[in-house]
Amino acid sequence: MTKAGSNVLVVYAHPKPDSLTGALKDVAVRQLRTQGHEVRITDLYAMGWKAAADTDDFGAVEEPNFMLASGEAYHNGTLSPDIRAEQEKLLWADAVVLHFPFWWFGMPAIMKGWVDRVLTCGFAYGAGGTALPRYGAGALAGRRAMLVVSIGGKQPSYSDRGINGPVEDLLFPIHHGILYYTGMDVLSPFLVHDTIRLGSARFEEVAHDLRRRMSDLAELEPIPYRAQAGGDYDRSLRLEPGRETRGATGFELHVAS
Amino acid sequence: MTKAGSNVLVVYAHPKPDSLTGALKDVAVRQLRTQGHEVRITDLYAMGWKAAADTDDFGAVEEPNFMLASGEAYHNGTLSPDIRAEQEKLLWADAVVLHFPFWWFGMPAIMKGWVDRVLTCGFAYGAGGTALPRYGAGALAGRRAMLVVSIGGKQPSYSDRGINGPVEDLLFPIHHGILYYTGMDVLSPFLVHDTIRLGSARFEEVAHDLRRRMSDLAELEPIPYRAQAGGDYDRSLRLEPGRETRGATGFELHVAS
Repeated sequence: MTKAGSNVLVVYAHPKPDSLTGALKDVAVRQLRTQGHEVRITDLYAMGWKAAADTDDFGAVEEPNFMLASGEAYHNGTLSPDIRAEQEKLLWADAVVLHFPFWWFGMPAIMKGWVDRVLTCGFAYGAGGTALPRYGAGALAGRRAMLVVSIGGKQPSYSDRGINGPVEDLLFPIHHGILYYTGMDVLSPFLVHDTIRLGSARFEEVAHDLRRRMSDLAELEPIPYRAQAGGDYDRSLRLEPGRETRGATGFELHVAS
Repeated sequence: MTKAGSNVLVVYAHPKPDSLTGALKDVAVRQLRTQGHEVRITDLYAMGWKAAADTDDFGAVEEPNFMLASGEAYHNGTLSPDIRAEQEKLLWADAVVLHFPFWWFGMPAIMKGWVDRVLTCGFAYGAGGTALPRYGAGALAGRRAMLVVSIGGKQPSYSDRGINGPVEDLLFPIHHGILYYTGMDVLSPFLVHDTIRLGSARFEEVAHDLRRRMSDLAELEPIPYRAQAGGDYDRSLRLEPGRETRGATGFELHVAS
């Protein structure tokens, strides 16, 4: 994407328009438009988005396996219109910003349902085998993605030794497992903690930081996850010995140093 | 729970009854009943479970904050009947088994919507503050919980160095962040990998292992997560220095050695 005149898809999930998440979405959208970007908004609650993936999404398919059936429907052009509309928006976008409150250490169900239903086999990834492009390659490569997340709890409880676990690890399944998996470049998330009674002075600070973050969207360095096809992984998709930063374990292994 | 005659709630989410997830749910339920347990089943797709939490769930409430409003509705008894029925099942249960396919490194949206809507403030946890019981204490303490998860990818790609990340870390937000948070004792998950074209011979092996696992449900040792109130955490909910197993980082810090 370029500094001005890019296409940005904002996907937003909160049941209350007067929520902090809703207010921050408005701040981000205004800033992006001020910079000359074209913005489209997927407001999942306002759309009454269907969250539960099921065979009604596919039209007539022969394949019994549910995941592969989504691929058959994609290739046949029989996916339901709401899904096709979102896939078209993703292809249109140069950047995707997901706005949501952190509920039970993940996305609200309605947004998980956007992921489950829109990122079908065939569209967002190939099926089976290890040679097909995933993690850093695929149909959505070249796009940037960023999360804006409102978190009720305070920051120390989400820090390195915090009881909830480090927030970057809690977000890894979304950042790496959803966004990077489909080829997108993932930017550091914009997180707001301790949101339950956020006063207006703190809101202004947060809004200021968010506007700055939106104005940097084109320049920010993505998280340097390792591409599946980059030579770092063996045939069983395990990291080759010695590639990691000394002492790294778990999710850290998949970030290049 | 006891070896026989306990109450088990099975929460199940798959859009196709003829799926592997559906077949394994049937195996587990039969085994549990054979052992003399009483089993109730929450079949989310069959029930047409509403996945998206919204203010229609609450009845008339005054509180503007969405999470706190769920607590007000809980205390006033105005939560919608589908939510109250699931809360009653959880209180009835001695053990809860969640059956689902691993979609995008988490639960299907419909099951996330069961978590989002049923585990309300007031019922499953207190609101705000650090003194209220969470993580190893709370209304659901004394119950056992276990996941049965079908995973399309092969096991090595979910192992210590696997590209997807270690599966136990990918499940941490569910195990620790949802189940243990509400006070439940979390058992090791029952995982089936490489499920896309599972042959009948392998299905029989898996079913055999699952029956054995179900018959051990009362005896299995829970994952020894650290209780919030157990003295391991400081006032900001960070692990006190020196409590960890030597070299542990990230999510591992919250498992006692």
